[in-house]
Amino acid sequence: MDTVELDLGPRSYRIFIGAGLLDDEALLSSCVEGRQAFVVTNETIAPVFLDRVKASLSAFQVDTMTLPDGEQYKTLSSMNDIVTGLLRHRHNRGTTVIALGGGVVGDTAGFAAACYQRGVSLIQMPTTLLAQVDSSVGGKTAVNHELGKNMIGAFHQPRAVIIDTDTLETLPGRELTAGLAEVIKHGVLADAGFFAWLEDHMEDLRRLDKAGHAIKRSCEIKAAVVAGDERETGNRALLNLGHTFAHAIENGLGYGQWLHGEAVGAGLVMAGDLAVRLGMCTATDCLRIKALVEKAGLPVCPPAELTAETMLNLMGLDKKVSDRGMKFVLPRGLGSAEIVEGVDVQLVMATLNAGAGLGESAAGL
Amino acid sequence: MDTVELDLGPRSYRIFIGAGLLDDEALLSSCVEGRQAFVVTNETIAPVFLDRVKASLSAFQVDTMTLPDGEQYKTLSSMNDIVTGLLRHRHNRGTTVIALGGGVVGDTAGFAAACYQRGVSLIQMPTTLLAQVDSSVGGKTAVNHELGKNMIGAFHQPRAVIIDTDTLETLPGRELTAGLAEVIKHGVLADAGFFAWLEDHMEDLRRLDKAGHAIKRSCEIKAAVVAGDERETGNRALLNLGHTFAHAIENGLGYGQWLHGEAVGAGLVMAGDLAVRLGMCTATDCLRIKALVEKAGLPVCPPAELTAETMLNLMGLDKKVSDRGMKFVLPRGLGSAEIVEGVDVQLVMATLNAGAGLGESAAGL
Repeated sequence: MDTVELDLGPRSYRIFIGAGLLDDEALLSSCVEGRQAFVVTNETIAPVFLDRVKASLSAFQVDTMTLPDGEQYKTLSSMNDIVTGLLRHRHNRGTTVIALGGGVVGDTAGFAAACYQRGVSLIQMPTTLLAQVDSSVGGKTAVNHELGKNMIGAFHQPRAVIIDTDTLETLPGRELTAGLAEVIKHGVLADAGFFAWLEDHMEDLRRLDKAGHAIKRSCEIKAAVVAGDERETGNRALLNLGHTFAHAIENGLGYGQWLHGEAVGAGLVMAGDLAVRLGMCTATDCLRIKALVEKAGLPVCPPAELTAETMLNLMGLDKKVSDRGMKFVLPRGLGSAEIVEGVDVQLVMATLNAGAGLGESAAGL
Repeated sequence: MDTVELDLGPRSYRIFIGAGLLDDEALLSSCVEGRQAFVVTNETIAPVFLDRVKASLSAFQVDTMTLPDGEQYKTLSSMNDIVTGLLRHRHNRGTTVIALGGGVVGDTAGFAAACYQRGVSLIQMPTTLLAQVDSSVGGKTAVNHELGKNMIGAFHQPRAVIIDTDTLETLPGRELTAGLAEVIKHGVLADAGFFAWLEDHMEDLRRLDKAGHAIKRSCEIKAAVVAGDERETGNRALLNLGHTFAHAIENGLGYGQWLHGEAVGAGLVMAGDLAVRLGMCTATDCLRIKALVEKAGLPVCPPAELTAETMLNLMGLDKKVSDRGMKFVLPRGLGSAEIVEGVDVQLVMATLNAGAGLGESAAGL
């Protein structure tokens, strides 16, 4: 078992990474604070993992709630249902909510834990690669509002993140691939050596070989960024590398058409392209990003049905933004990234046209 | 204008108290952080005060939302409506939510501010005495769940509390009286001198004379307690003096039959009675509490329809509690209070019977 420390003073916690951790009764028992635990999961995960987690919590009063599976259930209504379950089973302020599942379960159950009686303990047990390398770490919780994703939420750090790498064995291939986008992102924004390691081991990772190392290094990078800026008033925004483009794709297609990680894959390539145009990144580095995204099995261009103009509008371009230029997180070479304000809209259009196959990419290929 | 400082490190803020503050454009402008303000109020308050507050915010983009009036609207649904308004009017993470109203508006709008985009700035502008001396100070926000009051919420400190004492002139007499219960509570739990001042000036206060001093001293006392225990892991619970009895009354009658402050009035008297039985308080002190509660126009006994047995059940008595005794916040003389665990259920029953007129009060009268 590996551990990664997230240093946030009184809110510090550990991320445990290893095979078979769902069954590690000693570990789970040491992470639950009081005498009560409430496991939130979904219909897909429950039949596969829930009984094992319950067995590992035999020392506690354990109650559970199984949500339907899907982003469309990441709502205030699901959060309210979790609170109903907690109250029906008389969970008090000392209870521990355990989120067993992917990003939707983690975000929804995490937000319920943040709000129940003004905040109770939370343990994240992510079962998808995306959740393991990204959403379960760092304390962001939220549900969607009909007018916007993640608009209602809280910063609520877990007491622990428990990552059982065996859970990836039952993960659909497309979701595994999507998770790799965030892994690549961590390499691009913080660690050229890790990026090179990913280039050497991408085939292994897609076979779930060496996944533990990729998860650990991703968690270390994310933990370091979050430790420096818990509430995203500054550098935590670096974790949004590629995400301005990605959100436009998800939004333009309708959420759920492309998985978030797939959109991030194409977004990383476009961020690289724009960085080359701004002189922040060499053509070689940009091509390495594109090649690695492709090797992971992810798309490297936005979907054909979204024109450059559509993408630009979806990125929130209005008169005001246009006057001041646009704001992006972009790679500075490989292994670092910067928040860049005032980016000329013409350059953004050039990147979008290249992405759409209507113009030359900055790397000239 | 008086100011009271609430010292919470990076979350410190000031409470401004004075006449005519709703119209103080300089003060309001200095408290709003960004360029946008979103005023939440209710149908009763809006016609009286909303235009004045908007006029004082002429330097900002101001949007408003008017909720229906009443505790039954302190819900997740109202919170969602506030978020809808914020999104429709394109308020960003830099916006400031302003809660203009009583406890329901403050708690609901405060919770919306806590959750909107994971937390935006909040200003409390309380317009009832109860909100001015209690609920607007200290950062507790929440909405009700069908299975319990205040079950979904957050600790979210405002940037400022602006108390315009003139707003009390339009407050119904019964609500003014209810607010006095929390004022008396602050005297009992923290300041014998203030308690004596209240004995001398209760008639003045009921005519709204010298209200500014009573509000200021209440805010000072609450601020000091909150500064020592922001998240109620210890002594902040002292602010619940009288509230175990009060919640049983409110719950037993159905919420809204008695105002919260009315129930707290009777609760303070019962807490005094129980303290005498435990040797924590003299009969004289207990009688002074009862006399002051009566002078404020508040009830000194629980309602006749609630028997001692009913009250005991409503206070959460079950086998487990009974074995360990019960937990109360009780006065230690006048001007201090303590959290007392393991209180013998027989003593509690004696207090409840005395309250119901079926037994002798501890003070022998």
